[in-house]
Amino acid sequence: MGDDGLSALLLSDLKTILGELGLLLEPADCARYVSGARYGNGQTLAVLRPDSHQQVVAIVKLCSEHQQALVLQGANTGLVAASTPDASGHYLVLSLERLKKHIVIDVINRSVEVDAGVTLQELNAALEPHGLFFPIDLGANPSIGGMIAANTGGARLIKYGDVRKNLLGLSAVLMHPAGEELMLQAALFKNNTGPDLKQLFIGSSGAHGIITRAVLQVHRIPQQIATALVVPCDQAAVLALLQILEQKCGDFLTAFEGISGAALQSVLKHIPNISNPFAPDAVPDYCVLVELSSSAELISDGSNSGINLEAILDRCLENCFGEVIENAVIGRGKDLWRIRHSISEALRHEGKMIAFDISMPRSSLLAFRAQALQSMAQKYPWVKVMDFGHWADGGMHFNMVWPSNLAQVYSDEVVQEIRTLIYDMVVREFHGSFSAEHGIGPYNIAYYQRYTSQAARQLSGKIQHCLDPHRLLGLTWFGESV
Amino acid sequence: MGDDGLSALLLSDLKTILGELGLLLEPADCARYVSGARYGNGQTLAVLRPDSHQQVVAIVKLCSEHQQALVLQGANTGLVAASTPDASGHYLVLSLERLKKHIVIDVINRSVEVDAGVTLQELNAALEPHGLFFPIDLGANPSIGGMIAANTGGARLIKYGDVRKNLLGLSAVLMHPAGEELMLQAALFKNNTGPDLKQLFIGSSGAHGIITRAVLQVHRIPQQIATALVVPCDQAAVLALLQILEQKCGDFLTAFEGISGAALQSVLKHIPNISNPFAPDAVPDYCVLVELSSSAELISDGSNSGINLEAILDRCLENCFGEVIENAVIGRGKDLWRIRHSISEALRHEGKMIAFDISMPRSSLLAFRAQALQSMAQKYPWVKVMDFGHWADGGMHFNMVWPSNLAQVYSDEVVQEIRTLIYDMVVREFHGSFSAEHGIGPYNIAYYQRYTSQAARQLSGKIQHCLDPHRLLGLTWFGESV
Repeated sequence: MGDDGLSALLLSDLKTILGELGLLLEPADCARYVSGARYGNGQTLAVLRPDSHQQVVAIVKLCSEHQQALVLQGANTGLVAASTPDASGHYLVLSLERLKKHIVIDVINRSVEVDAGVTLQELNAALEPHGLFFPIDLGANPSIGGMIAANTGGARLIKYGDVRKNLLGLSAVLMHPAGEELMLQAALFKNNTGPDLKQLFIGSSGAHGIITRAVLQVHRIPQQIATALVVPCDQAAVLALLQILEQKCGDFLTAFEGISGAALQSVLKHIPNISNPFAPDAVPDYCVLVELSSSAELISDGSNSGINLEAILDRCLENCFGEVIENAVIGRGKDLWRIRHSISEALRHEGKMIAFDISMPRSSLLAFRAQALQSMAQKYPWVKVMDFGHWADGGMHFNMVWPSNLAQVYSDEVVQEIRTLIYDMVVREFHGSFSAEHGIGPYNIAYYQRYTSQAARQLSGKIQHCLDPHRLLGLTWFGESV
Repeated sequence: MGDDGLSALLLSDLKTILGELGLLLEPADCARYVSGARYGNGQTLAVLRPDSHQQVVAIVKLCSEHQQALVLQGANTGLVAASTPDASGHYLVLSLERLKKHIVIDVINRSVEVDAGVTLQELNAALEPHGLFFPIDLGANPSIGGMIAANTGGARLIKYGDVRKNLLGLSAVLMHPAGEELMLQAALFKNNTGPDLKQLFIGSSGAHGIITRAVLQVHRIPQQIATALVVPCDQAAVLALLQILEQKCGDFLTAFEGISGAALQSVLKHIPNISNPFAPDAVPDYCVLVELSSSAELISDGSNSGINLEAILDRCLENCFGEVIENAVIGRGKDLWRIRHSISEALRHEGKMIAFDISMPRSSLLAFRAQALQSMAQKYPWVKVMDFGHWADGGMHFNMVWPSNLAQVYSDEVVQEIRTLIYDMVVREFHGSFSAEHGIGPYNIAYYQRYTSQAARQLSGKIQHCLDPHRLLGLTWFGESV
């Protein structure tokens, strides 16, 4: 292992299990598996690419025998460096990307059995002819296995929930006992027959076992969508608007995405072919992208019994003018979402982005945002906050930019200071989370240690020890400090 | 312990911790804690009734020291004998019913922090002035801690999900390390910071630790409800109707409860003041109670932008007449739900009830029901099947009655044969569950052993061993056979 290369015996057995296509050994071939989407950059002696559950079982037995450590990887879109090896060269990459033969749809049950390596886009392409989709809405195109290991959320969580809420079953291969197959594939909406073991693998960063297949609940593709970009009278009005929308059309509320004026300004400046939905030179201090959706078709014969989302949204917003909102653009959903989805790209044009993925009770969002903006202005006035957030689920991307061309030279140390300042505020003052959607990996494990109670780390460590006593699976250790 | 009574030292320490009100020793006082709602009947030397989290911590430390086993009990409404002691007298009952000081509602976050001993009805009474409720709809009035330990579902699961989907956080006291406090009370809709330890306690039958407080997501009380009792043209049409309702008004679909003609007939015969919603002498072969609900108020000014549920349901059913449904009664929600909720009581008038709490993929319901009815008619023709079920979530109460006044004398052995026949069919042929909502306890642990894979039992046993190595907590052992 490591500096000495793979043992001849291990290599020969891996070749037998995996065949030509399944084993990459050339550094050039391995390159794209050792760098993460945002963080993580290491090296490996080999990438293992099984194309069946049985090959995964064989790999795990073999690697356990040789005490060979593995890093699991799906589509490698994770943002916390959990799916790429470190620089030691001691880890092999176990890529699940070729595990994608099986997609079996049960239309009546609104469920699908799907191999872990299938990507979100591939799954949705298979579901689409049946009028169904898997509603986790993300910028990236992760694999289903990776989505489970990270418990991804997305912009439509308020209506559909996260991956956990939509996972009916799975199968996994355990590292201990080596190669043990845990088959929990029931496609059931309710099944209370003992501890729900599949929960162990959700949000596990790949540390608890290798997910090979999932059974997912899927949903009907919306037949109607109504969208608006709304300018609240002030910050408090953002929450007031959310309350009103939940009350008047909560059955349909699908997204409620806050966008700061700074973020909108940046999109208008840097992204081509996007025009200001409001007056050309008027960028509001803050605005909210609202989406309603329904699986019901629009019935437009004028009777009172149909569901017309645009009329419902229009009427609801109309009643908010004056006290709650001061401007609104209704319709043009694609244009409005393009603004929302372009923020990250726009921010990169401004300088070095410092990204946050935090959440808190909705009732804390106002106070947190005011306090955090003030702290940043006082202590780090040269850093520009350009935040946006999923207010309806308490999520906030309190992103910042360290502008290029500044006297103040970019400093990793100062960025760490800023991270700690913001995370301390979120977790300790506002009882929030320092990782709402992205999970835990080497990138943020130090913050896990900082904010997780000793009791929780002890128990997490015991469970991880049950599943992987020799620490052969992944880089993330959830136990007490290493 | 046991036959020798409690040691003087343990007794004296318990008195110090719990005081007069907190410790019951007289058999007459203990009586109501040793018999379960449906199964379970044992004895105990004492009932411990702490009224604070700190008292729970002290009890656990003390009992761990004395190796004194405990059975946890909430409102004692469980149906699998998990919350009552056995006949050995070795268990003390730890009742959480006095743990009910704390109910803190966060209206903006739609969440509530609530002590484990608060009952569902008490919680809903506290939420009601805020226009909120906890939407798990049950016949019984369990405690919140018990609902988590059983992961209860209920008749409106299709809209709101089960307890698991509505649990944001909890605090628990662990048996090992004795008295360790696991405080996971974040009121967050998303929080992916390592393994989600609260999942260990959901559906655990009280075997993993003592839940002292929960943080729940709550929902807006519906402002509009539309109800109908619908007669499908045939069994296949039940699923067709479900598909149409999900397509046309899925945003509102709250309940879809199948009722067999035999069950309806029994209600009409035995329950006073319930009249046949259809023609006086016409009991259909099968009917379905449909409920739509919305948090939006009815806007009745005739404009097209309001939401009028009764009109929506009416229109939807109108289009189904002929091919899918042959009759429907709309409105009279309370009367219709009274029929549904009276079934269990009515069946008891018919003879000895044999209750089932099974679930399967919705796509299997038709085939299962046909095959199970046929098997019962062939092998046990004297047993009357009088089933009903939550078709939308795949749940079925395939209940039966062994009529009184039969030549065929009631036999526990034959009933076990019938149980095994039905469960084998559900689990092995139709990939379903033998316990959809009620969980696992001494009553059905043998079926847990029968249907749970060795790999799953091994892992469950390891986890339970981490949390309770000396088996002091509850009667349910999830590991491999005892």
